[in-house]
Amino acid sequence: MEGLTKIDDLGKPRVVIVGGGFGGLELAKALAHAPVQVVLIDKQNYHTFQPLLYQVASAGLDEGDIVSPFRKILNEQDNFYFRLAEVLSVDAQAQIVETSIGCVRYDYLVLATGATTNYFGDAQMEKNAIAIKSVEDALELRNTVLSNFEQALQLGDMEQLNSLLDFVIVGGGPTGVEIAGALSELRTHVFPKDYREIDFKEMDIHLVQSGPVLLKGMSANASEQALKSLQKFGVQVWLDARVKSYDGYTATLNTGQQLVARTLIWAAGVTGAPIKGLDAGCLLPGNRYAVDVYNRVQGYENVFAVGDIALMKTPEYPDGHPMVAQPALQQGRRLGENLHRVLTHRLMEPFHYDDKGAMATIGRNHAVADIKLFGKEYHLDGFLAWLAWSVVHVVSLIGFRNRLMVLLQWTWSYFSYDKGLRYIIGKTRAPLVEADVEGKAIV
Amino acid sequence: MEGLTKIDDLGKPRVVIVGGGFGGLELAKALAHAPVQVVLIDKQNYHTFQPLLYQVASAGLDEGDIVSPFRKILNEQDNFYFRLAEVLSVDAQAQIVETSIGCVRYDYLVLATGATTNYFGDAQMEKNAIAIKSVEDALELRNTVLSNFEQALQLGDMEQLNSLLDFVIVGGGPTGVEIAGALSELRTHVFPKDYREIDFKEMDIHLVQSGPVLLKGMSANASEQALKSLQKFGVQVWLDARVKSYDGYTATLNTGQQLVARTLIWAAGVTGAPIKGLDAGCLLPGNRYAVDVYNRVQGYENVFAVGDIALMKTPEYPDGHPMVAQPALQQGRRLGENLHRVLTHRLMEPFHYDDKGAMATIGRNHAVADIKLFGKEYHLDGFLAWLAWSVVHVVSLIGFRNRLMVLLQWTWSYFSYDKGLRYIIGKTRAPLVEADVEGKAIV
Repeated sequence: MEGLTKIDDLGKPRVVIVGGGFGGLELAKALAHAPVQVVLIDKQNYHTFQPLLYQVASAGLDEGDIVSPFRKILNEQDNFYFRLAEVLSVDAQAQIVETSIGCVRYDYLVLATGATTNYFGDAQMEKNAIAIKSVEDALELRNTVLSNFEQALQLGDMEQLNSLLDFVIVGGGPTGVEIAGALSELRTHVFPKDYREIDFKEMDIHLVQSGPVLLKGMSANASEQALKSLQKFGVQVWLDARVKSYDGYTATLNTGQQLVARTLIWAAGVTGAPIKGLDAGCLLPGNRYAVDVYNRVQGYENVFAVGDIALMKTPEYPDGHPMVAQPALQQGRRLGENLHRVLTHRLMEPFHYDDKGAMATIGRNHAVADIKLFGKEYHLDGFLAWLAWSVVHVVSLIGFRNRLMVLLQWTWSYFSYDKGLRYIIGKTRAPLVEADVEGKAIV
Repeated sequence: MEGLTKIDDLGKPRVVIVGGGFGGLELAKALAHAPVQVVLIDKQNYHTFQPLLYQVASAGLDEGDIVSPFRKILNEQDNFYFRLAEVLSVDAQAQIVETSIGCVRYDYLVLATGATTNYFGDAQMEKNAIAIKSVEDALELRNTVLSNFEQALQLGDMEQLNSLLDFVIVGGGPTGVEIAGALSELRTHVFPKDYREIDFKEMDIHLVQSGPVLLKGMSANASEQALKSLQKFGVQVWLDARVKSYDGYTATLNTGQQLVARTLIWAAGVTGAPIKGLDAGCLLPGNRYAVDVYNRVQGYENVFAVGDIALMKTPEYPDGHPMVAQPALQQGRRLGENLHRVLTHRLMEPFHYDDKGAMATIGRNHAVADIKLFGKEYHLDGFLAWLAWSVVHVVSLIGFRNRLMVLLQWTWSYFSYDKGLRYIIGKTRAPLVEADVEGKAIV
């Protein structure tokens, strides 16, 4: 196998990147012309454009529109190698990563494993809630929403019926706000045509946020507008409230309020996804690795971390950078340049975050945006923000095909008021119910 | 529930259609203006455009491009109702269909359950082979092909490696020919860029056909051209050969020849998917219901069957019509008109099949077509047939969105020589292999 041995024969230092999210992928690209062998290891063979996962969950986009196989993205980069595997542990002494398909030696190791859903130790919640962190999550949520309505048709008992039509979303960050808005759009424009037998006044969408504002971290203007828009769309927003428990049927808030819903979407927090084997001392609360301004993991010479898994405390960002795409992308790019510099005997340059602002979309013609341009900050909301959000997201997608497809889907959805991908393929959490006496569906 | 009771209150005769393939869906549409309530029951909530499943399997199309949710297709048809359920049995005496969500009464019952893969009783084959009859099948095949290559990278042992790279396709009908062609295109234009470490001269594609010709039932010209094209593309075609057994690793032919491949695609035959409860006497060999020229099941007054599950023997078609889309579509349409006639006290009209010919595509610029127009038969092959095939399939898709998306995908694939949907999401049959000593992949 000429091909395989070739890898061993390269004789160049090897950079092993664990995880192909925004940070890992950008780093791999940034090393295109560096004198290294780049090995990316991921348990999926594709990059996921996470900011649009909620649109896959709400039948607006196909999963194929927001994922890109790593090999397709980088198959023209000569020094790039991909391995589909799960990383089990790191032996920093021996400079080896243990994976599900065997051990991999490294000269430089970069952890870019991102973050995973944080249930704060609530096992019951973890079992009963649905997250939106992966394509599988998003598809399962879509299948569950659609199946719920199919099953609801069988029921005459109003409480049972309502439990299938109602949704509780926990977490008022961008994901929570966006999925709440998307569900309300489906309720207004799409589902009533599909399920004429259902009275959609019975469909409730609850958004539960632990703090006093939505979109914490964005401007006060954005938070207020998001709240107003959601309320206008008929979403019931519970501020300063927490879901204390959820048994798969009843969500109990700390206020004592009970919300009955078979589907609870958990968007209330993330935690780092660390790897076994590294010194526990470098892992900060939140399961993120302490890194210096070069993204080097504290206490290691040749182990780095970028993106959500890295926590870089700086005077400007004493709690680290926001766990969103931009810091990951910028750190990946900077680290790529820095490794290139090191290997060509130049000094590394510290990372500086270029904050471009933040945006969230609420629904048709409604979004909020805090945009930072040339040192100034602009607040947009309504149609203009929505247009800006759409343009930024289409442009940020990877590859011409995905950009074109998303643009077309959106244009079509916008003018038809439709979300076409309402098919159920794969896993669903919806219960299978038999027609009850009052319902008697079509008997 | 006003909506639900409304159904019971219609006071119109109810037509229950079991299965929303080409025949069932066309029938539901044809009843749009008939004085009936139309209830379609299917275990999926979407229609599948089966002729393009092989393109989903070969990463050329997204599953979303070839499926259409029933509710989306027909949500403007007032008398249409859909239920997501599996039909368990029929009680023709009581005029009731028993389903997974309860019992459904009918005035007219139409079986449109189609056909399922026929393994001819070979349980080992059923366990080890992959079919291409459903979207799930197609996605599993795609995942398996891609995973095979990912795993092959770990291996140095040539026999093990080859077992992952080689494919055996059983059945030389349109599906077998088309998937063989699609795999050879991937081998030539797509995979070598993705898997630079693999020598694709080692990837063998075997097509095993029990009879002396491919595309049996098409013209001799079509059969010959298909064989020539496949051989030109490097597919190894075994005519007059049968796979006697397959243990998941070695396929043994009746000639004694052994083909080692971890993936065997079974496209060698279908059998009707009958329903429990009807008189066994009306079920002919091949598990298809004997129907008269009005598609009425033999021995029943108000039970009909259309499409693959129906076998209508006529002087012109003593063995019934071909089990493809056109007869199903035409029977569905005719039966819709006939039920409308019966209900408005007119006589039914017998079914006549309008044979428009047959086509199969082999790959880029290569297809064969026997086209019947105004009583004349035309044989096309090569680029013209490929163009005709493409146009016919785009036009036949359901809905503007799917037509546009498929057209764009194909245009993009044609000019880029790429098939972009190479991500692995969901089930795969590929084994998980650890790097072996000779391979040592990236250790």
